[in-house]
Amino acid sequence: MKREMLIEKYGLDISIVAVTDRSGAAINPNGLDIELLLEIKDKTGKIANYPEFGVSDISGVQVLDDVDYDCLVEVTPTNIEDGEPARTHMLKAMKDGKNVVTSNKGPLSLNFHELLEAADSTNAHFRYEASVGGAMPIINFSHETLAGNKITSVQGILNGTCNYILSRMANEGSPYLQTLNEAQELGIAETDPTQDVEGIDAACKIVILANSVLNRDVSLKDVKMEGITRITPESIALAKKEGLLIKLIGEASYDNLEVSPRLVREGSPFAVDGTLNVATLKTDLADDVTVAGKGAGSIETASAILSDIVSIWKARS
Amino acid sequence: MKREMLIEKYGLDISIVAVTDRSGAAINPNGLDIELLLEIKDKTGKIANYPEFGVSDISGVQVLDDVDYDCLVEVTPTNIEDGEPARTHMLKAMKDGKNVVTSNKGPLSLNFHELLEAADSTNAHFRYEASVGGAMPIINFSHETLAGNKITSVQGILNGTCNYILSRMANEGSPYLQTLNEAQELGIAETDPTQDVEGIDAACKIVILANSVLNRDVSLKDVKMEGITRITPESIALAKKEGLLIKLIGEASYDNLEVSPRLVREGSPFAVDGTLNVATLKTDLADDVTVAGKGAGSIETASAILSDIVSIWKARS
Repeated sequence: MKREMLIEKYGLDISIVAVTDRSGAAINPNGLDIELLLEIKDKTGKIANYPEFGVSDISGVQVLDDVDYDCLVEVTPTNIEDGEPARTHMLKAMKDGKNVVTSNKGPLSLNFHELLEAADSTNAHFRYEASVGGAMPIINFSHETLAGNKITSVQGILNGTCNYILSRMANEGSPYLQTLNEAQELGIAETDPTQDVEGIDAACKIVILANSVLNRDVSLKDVKMEGITRITPESIALAKKEGLLIKLIGEASYDNLEVSPRLVREGSPFAVDGTLNVATLKTDLADDVTVAGKGAGSIETASAILSDIVSIWKARS
Repeated sequence: MKREMLIEKYGLDISIVAVTDRSGAAINPNGLDIELLLEIKDKTGKIANYPEFGVSDISGVQVLDDVDYDCLVEVTPTNIEDGEPARTHMLKAMKDGKNVVTSNKGPLSLNFHELLEAADSTNAHFRYEASVGGAMPIINFSHETLAGNKITSVQGILNGTCNYILSRMANEGSPYLQTLNEAQELGIAETDPTQDVEGIDAACKIVILANSVLNRDVSLKDVKMEGITRITPESIALAKKEGLLIKLIGEASYDNLEVSPRLVREGSPFAVDGTLNVATLKTDLADDVTVAGKGAGSIETASAILSDIVSIWKARS
């Protein structure tokens, strides 16, 4: 159904010619069957089991060499140590003049300008909407929709897990560890919640926003970072009496890169509950403009990736 | 400064060749002096007093015939009876193959498809971001940024005056008429507040969103409308006890066009105070995506108009 919509609306007929995972790849220059791909991965866990066109023991880079394609969609797990293997995959594709769409925060928060330059050197398109805030379309929004404005800073609630925990602590008066455990039981927080609750995930996003929206040249080590682990129900209750909420706010401006708990006013756009992500762009003409959306989720991430693919398709000359 | 930014960033050097008001026009094919235009209008109230290039007793249509231009910016006052004179100005420009940018809700909520067809017939660009929500860039956002998504409805707080009155009634427990009077003293509500408080202004915006975002063919008479004049501090207090707020919400979907007071949850994106406008797009992939921004103001409206001009410039072939 989505396929027909893309053909009708944009004349875009996407053909998936290769998919890789740790097991190997499935490769068919005439296009793979999407339903079958999902079924094989779901049932066997290994894409190499794809009938007829499955290949074992082939690396991602080898697939990029062997296959003729227009756009790489890089969605390997985030690695904030060295950005691999995503970094190598993307650089390889870009150097071959291929377009790249990614949701991968790792290489973007470590090697942003290396990637940008690799893409520029072959005039490849490079889009990464899904890397910040899932279905909250902050990056394309700031580049396209606010044309004519100068953006001076981005502030936002960039981690849904932290916002969920803080919202529940505020609504129920429950302590941090208990609320974290409940979030873990619900699958909202991960078993190892460090990346979220220490502010690392939000800091990665701040780096991407600083580089992309403000055109800065920074990486993860440049961000001042404080998480939510030391916030008490008492401090939340005290703030509430004054009509204030405690939120984990990320800020990227020309003189500050920071993730830390801050007080926000009830009735302001940051006073949202649950796993929503929200970001406010400060601009010279439009004043504050705010975008909010689901920060995570597979369909939401797919939505961001698809909007990037459509943008690249529309921008082709 | 903005001029240099537009030249540097987009290669766009805007020259204002004619400006009209009730007094006549100022016309110079080599470009008018912006500072002088503002000074003359400010001091004398009449653009026809522009030195050397001022012309008295010339109609808008006559100016469109006499002047060579690329883009008409139509910002005459909103008229929801027959959309004039904006409708005639825009149709004239479109038929001559000229691009049109407008902030004028009148003809858009009465004659949307007539305008769209006139623009299409000569391949003229037609943009109207400023007509809905000032600096809340909902229209271009839904067309550009959410590419690949199917939008199923738009809901929002589309009138800043009503939201200001309702926020104050909630925060201070004050009755409607007293709060309206205070808003009038502050210049937030107009002397005749009918268009705002009866929901007419929000309904115009709902019509534009339904036609533009949902591709429907509707006009103002199709909208169910109820304003805020009958809301009491008691009902607001009652809602508050349950963690709810009363907001004037506009909704455009495939089976509903409505402006009416509704209950929204504290902690939701609609729980914003003051004159902010907020709109949520329901989509098939990205789920709910929300945009918020200043709903009114001359700079904010100028920002939306400028973003439309830049879009047209970028889209030129």
